[in-house]
Amino acid sequence: MLEIGPLTFQSRLLLGTGKYPDFDSQKRAVEVSETEILTFAVRRMDIFEASQPNLLEKLDTTQFSLLPNTAGAKTAEEAVRIARLAKASGLCTMIKVEVIGDFQTLLPDPFETMKACEMLLEEGFIVLPYISDDVILAKRLQELGVHAVMPGASPIGSGMGIVNPLNLSLIIEQAQVPVIVDAGIGGPADAALAMEMGADGVLLNTAVSAAEDPVKMAEAMKLAVHAGRLGFEAGRIPKKRYASASSPSEGMSTVE
Amino acid sequence: MLEIGPLTFQSRLLLGTGKYPDFDSQKRAVEVSETEILTFAVRRMDIFEASQPNLLEKLDTTQFSLLPNTAGAKTAEEAVRIARLAKASGLCTMIKVEVIGDFQTLLPDPFETMKACEMLLEEGFIVLPYISDDVILAKRLQELGVHAVMPGASPIGSGMGIVNPLNLSLIIEQAQVPVIVDAGIGGPADAALAMEMGADGVLLNTAVSAAEDPVKMAEAMKLAVHAGRLGFEAGRIPKKRYASASSPSEGMSTVE
Amino acid sequence: MLEIGPLTFQSRLLLGTGKYPDFDSQKRAVEVSETEILTFAVRRMDIFEASQPNLLEKLDTTQFSLLPNTAGAKTAEEAVRIARLAKASGLCTMIKVEVIGDFQTLLPDPFETMKACEMLLEEGFIVLPYISDDVILAKRLQELGVHAVMPGASPIGSGMGIVNPLNLSLIIEQAQVPVIVDAGIGGPADAALAMEMGADGVLLNTAVSAAEDPVKMAEAMKLAVHAGRLGFEAGRIPKKRYASASSPSEGMSTVE
Amino acid sequence: MLEIGPLTFQSRLLLGTGKYPDFDSQKRAVEVSETEILTFAVRRMDIFEASQPNLLEKLDTTQFSLLPNTAGAKTAEEAVRIARLAKASGLCTMIKVEVIGDFQTLLPDPFETMKACEMLLEEGFIVLPYISDDVILAKRLQELGVHAVMPGASPIGSGMGIVNPLNLSLIIEQAQVPVIVDAGIGGPADAALAMEMGADGVLLNTAVSAAEDPVKMAEAMKLAVHAGRLGFEAGRIPKKRYASASSPSEGMSTVE
Repeated sequence: MLEIGPLTFQSRLLLGTGKYPDFDSQKRAVEVSETEILTFAVRRMDIFEASQPNLLEKLDTTQFSLLPNTAGAKTAEEAVRIARLAKASGLCTMIKVEVIGDFQTLLPDPFETMKACEMLLEEGFIVLPYISDDVILAKRLQELGVHAVMPGASPIGSGMGIVNPLNLSLIIEQAQVPVIVDAGIGGPADAALAMEMGADGVLLNTAVSAAEDPVKMAEAMKLAVHAGRLGFEAGRIPKKRYASASSPSEGMSTVE
Repeated sequence: MLEIGPLTFQSRLLLGTGKYPDFDSQKRAVEVSETEILTFAVRRMDIFEASQPNLLEKLDTTQFSLLPNTAGAKTAEEAVRIARLAKASGLCTMIKVEVIGDFQTLLPDPFETMKACEMLLEEGFIVLPYISDDVILAKRLQELGVHAVMPGASPIGSGMGIVNPLNLSLIIEQAQVPVIVDAGIGGPADAALAMEMGADGVLLNTAVSAAEDPVKMAEAMKLAVHAGRLGFEAGRIPKKRYASASSPSEGMSTVE
Repeated sequence: MLEIGPLTFQSRLLLGTGKYPDFDSQKRAVEVSETEILTFAVRRMDIFEASQPNLLEKLDTTQFSLLPNTAGAKTAEEAVRIARLAKASGLCTMIKVEVIGDFQTLLPDPFETMKACEMLLEEGFIVLPYISDDVILAKRLQELGVHAVMPGASPIGSGMGIVNPLNLSLIIEQAQVPVIVDAGIGGPADAALAMEMGADGVLLNTAVSAAEDPVKMAEAMKLAVHAGRLGFEAGRIPKKRYASASSPSEGMSTVE
Repeated sequence: MLEIGPLTFQSRLLLGTGKYPDFDSQKRAVEVSETEILTFAVRRMDIFEASQPNLLEKLDTTQFSLLPNTAGAKTAEEAVRIARLAKASGLCTMIKVEVIGDFQTLLPDPFETMKACEMLLEEGFIVLPYISDDVILAKRLQELGVHAVMPGASPIGSGMGIVNPLNLSLIIEQAQVPVIVDAGIGGPADAALAMEMGADGVLLNTAVSAAEDPVKMAEAMKLAVHAGRLGFEAGRIPKKRYASASSPSEGMSTVE
């Protein structure tokens, strides 16, 4: 069970809602994924005046916890403003803090992210910052009181998977709150690896929405997260350069 | 559907039967895995006189296809003798050819493996050789007529996963018969990766039998293989160093 | 030529002075390395009263630029105090800012490092911060005015080499000041890789001082840094999965 | 000192002669590299009738040991014919056996390579086979009597470096003759890594000849091979996830 602040979830897969080819595949991908947490970007213009059909109209939002994100923010102040808008809608108490430090790589700014988290915690939000895999940054944010940390596996939309397993494992070892791997996941093996390493959840968007078949990929990711989690709980074998035979000459099972 | 020679299978997970802590966990792991193909080492002494309880007594072998292997063979001749014993038992037509070239690493011998396959094909076996990830070796064996190739991800029991994704992908691209990744899988992410890359199946033993909780790991592997296969079919996104935001500022879904 | 603020150096190898088996091997390693910049930890008690023989007595310090570091500091204030002590000695104007965020991994604290840099820049130091490979952190420090950035390849003393080549390459691409890879280098190939990727320098300590033969390793590192730099300048071939023959059948050189 | 059969060499860098932009850069790259062994493809038509200027006319071939290769051969018989042509020229006793199994990837055929080696050893050649990194293949060839084994780091001309360090290290550990890493080297760091791992030599072609500046890259490779070898001899530090500070608070050198 994934526990974020006072909230609990059965599913460990968080799904983004951007960049699907069409609303129907978006809707079906969300359903098939069995996600309980949907993330999406908040924009001022739409939040109070819905001029066009969108996902959240089509989905029964009471089925999901909504995790609005502050995508587009370059400063803590912008992020806080976006978060307040989201809260004013009455649909959510969680916020994914995303303050971008560079619009080429979309990598997050550690300083503005920290500042935004501090302000949002004071205002009573459940705060989940998207961060780099800097181990001390993850530690400091937890000392501040965030409810989860969301280190990127690699840059947003890159599909490169976990480029630094060492840092991710150090973050997981030191974590006092859930670690949700966010950004960079490309395929099911990446999601399974994050979970097998002990992450508490995985947040995906492009890997599903930009796959050739988003609905099938959503199912793949659901299974991969589950597989990785079970693998973590089951206690995998250690790595060695070589080992003894798995079909040893003594004591083996044989055909009768 | 996995097709090996004239046989077809729903499951793409092949499971070994060696090195479980006890028969009960072996039995339950096999069941939970939903595997349809069980592999095991044949030994002369036991094959006609069962002196002790073993897996195949406890399982309803009519539920499974049996894939005896020639573990312990150092030469083609030894492998062929073991294969004939297995066939004489009347339980199987498939044989996993495993001729070890070095008892430290348990890596396979390309020359003796090739020779054994040639002889066994002539005798009408369904032949699945365990091989290194040498791309041309895989090609030559297919030209000979083997029914599947089983490249190792890494040495038997090492748990190192796929150490050379390049070679595995080249083998898969050139394959005319199923490619079943055999040996070296450590955790669910490894199994998912093999499948996501386009392998047709995965054969596991130690990763499950030597896990802290073999039954739970068996379930993890079942899901991982399924997840990886779906991911392959769904067409994953390409890798790039960085990409555009998954929450773009235009056209995104918003909170109402 | 390596330019750090107003200083210029022929050598791109910076060498630490800690943990050598004895003073003689330290002295000879330093000489063989042909380094022009020596780094060392400052401690209050020793800086004005030398109670025991040490490296800097044995070396002609006029031959080297000294780069004292603030190792042991946990806060910006401590780092600044240590830096002032170093400056008071009259031997140096450069300071390596090292503020540790966790004494298990010895990974640097981005917040205290930033604060220390800001204070030291105001006091006129030439400031070289040791940092994680967080791309935006490197960018923000450069905007602040630091004279070089020193991302770790992996944790101090780990010998794991460059665990995240992607982040290092992004830092190098965006850099306005020298990028000196610091910490985690294990062998010559790591140093060569950092330089081949376009780093401006490499700072080493344990890889040399704790090698079985520190003097020989110092020479290896000198050559590796040079090799990597030349390789960077020479423009290496791109990576592809396979290519055409290097001994093509047309136009090749032949034996007469 | 590199010993191949009865021959001894100071340099551990073997250089190919194909695909240079012009003869002058080829000549200078060869000189700068300080190689003592040049490899080149033999072609029947040219070997006795030189219709055009080529490298070997321009170089003082008494300075080098020539290592003709059998590039273009698809079978053992073709390779043997090419080798005999080379020998008939009177310029060389060594032969690099290169029998390609697939003209897309240019990966070597283990069976034809083995057969060619057997025939050439009987004819008294000094035999150096280019092979995959199959550990048992390398072992069998040594049992046959080859004078060195030349595993590819990755496909010819790919520049991907050492894609399977595990296999290469296993080959090196078991080797009774020199291990010369051949094919796939992209930059100096790859060459340094091969040597640091304990390889006895490195054979390069495209990495130098197709670099933007072949002469500078030749120098880089010379230094990288030297650096890697020294690093191997110097005994590098082990890898660990993290370690103690290299600037410990006790016993450190300090500023006076």
